[in-house]
Amino acid sequence: MSISMYQAFIPPAVRALTNLAAFLDKIASHAEARKIDPAVFVGARLFPDMLPLVKQVQIASDTVKGGAARLAGQEPPRFEDNEASFPELQVRIQKTIDYLQSFTSEQIDGSEDKAITLAMRSGELHFKGQDYLTTYVLPNLYFHVTTAYAIARSNGVELGKRDFLGQA
Amino acid sequence: MSISMYQAFIPPAVRALTNLAAFLDKIASHAEARKIDPAVFVGARLFPDMLPLVKQVQIASDTVKGGAARLAGQEPPRFEDNEASFPELQVRIQKTIDYLQSFTSEQIDGSEDKAITLAMRSGELHFKGQDYLTTYVLPNLYFHVTTAYAIARSNGVELGKRDFLGQA
Repeated sequence: MSISMYQAFIPPAVRALTNLAAFLDKIASHAEARKIDPAVFVGARLFPDMLPLVKQVQIASDTVKGGAARLAGQEPPRFEDNEASFPELQVRIQKTIDYLQSFTSEQIDGSEDKAITLAMRSGELHFKGQDYLTTYVLPNLYFHVTTAYAIARSNGVELGKRDFLGQA
Repeated sequence: MSISMYQAFIPPAVRALTNLAAFLDKIASHAEARKIDPAVFVGARLFPDMLPLVKQVQIASDTVKGGAARLAGQEPPRFEDNEASFPELQVRIQKTIDYLQSFTSEQIDGSEDKAITLAMRSGELHFKGQDYLTTYVLPNLYFHVTTAYAIARSNGVELGKRDFLGQA
C-alpha cells in the first residue's frame, strides 16, 4: 500500500506550476488594467534583501527540473535565467512542465534510496531520494510559488488561496 | 518501488512544523532584542486583507491535523485557536507535532484511494487520499509556513532559506 515517487512528485509539481502560470497571468492583467509597467511586478520584492518575483519563478523551475533529473539520473537542462517579462516567464514555466512531463514513471520510480548529492556554496548536501523529494524539492517548490503569490498579494493583486491550490 | 503515504506525509510535516517553531523563536528573539512588543509580530500581515502570522500558524496546524485524521479515519482534535503570543503558538505547534507522531504508519498507509470529503464554504471538495495529501494538505502546509516566514522577513527579521528548509 503505497504511492510511487513519480506520483508523489510529477503530478503535484505540474499542478503547482500550472497554478503559478495562471496567477502570473492575473498579475499581468492587473498591471495592464491599471496601466502599471509589468516590469514593476516582475521585479517586485517583499523586502530589499529578498529575491524578486522573476527569481522566485526561476528557482521554482530550477528546483523541479533539477529534482526530476537527479532522481532519474540525468543532467538537468540549463535554462538561461534571462526572463524579463510575463510572456517570457510563461515560456519558462511551460518548458519546465514539458520537461517534467517528458519523464515516464519508470524513470522516477525506484529512486527512494538513490544517493543524491547537491553542491551548495556552503558545502555538499547528501540525501537519499525519498528525503530529497519530500524535505527539499517539494518544500522548495512550494516556498517559491508561495513567495511569488505573496509578492503579488502584497502589491495589491487580487488573488485567493484557490489560485495557489488550483481547482480540486 | 514506492514510498508510503505515512512517509510522504508525517516526517516532512513534522519537519516543517519543527522549522516553523524554530523560526518563530527567532522572531520572538528579534522582537525582544529591539524592545518591540511581540504582539506586533503575532498580528503582522503582508497586506490588510491577508491573515496575520497567528492565523498562518493555526491554519498550518489545522491542515496537517485534519489531514492525518481524515487519512486515518479519525475525528481531528479541536484546538481553540486562542493563541495570542509566541509561547502559546509554540504550545500549539508542539501539540500538533505530538498528534502527528501519535499515528503509526499502519494507520496512514493504505489510504491512497480512500475517499476524502471536505466541507468548504463554497461546497464540498472530493479527493482520493493520495491527491488529498499531494495537492491539498502538503501545498497548504507549505503555503502557510512560507507565508509566516514571509511576514517575518517583510518585517525585517533576519531569516534565511535554511530556517525554512531545516538542516539537511
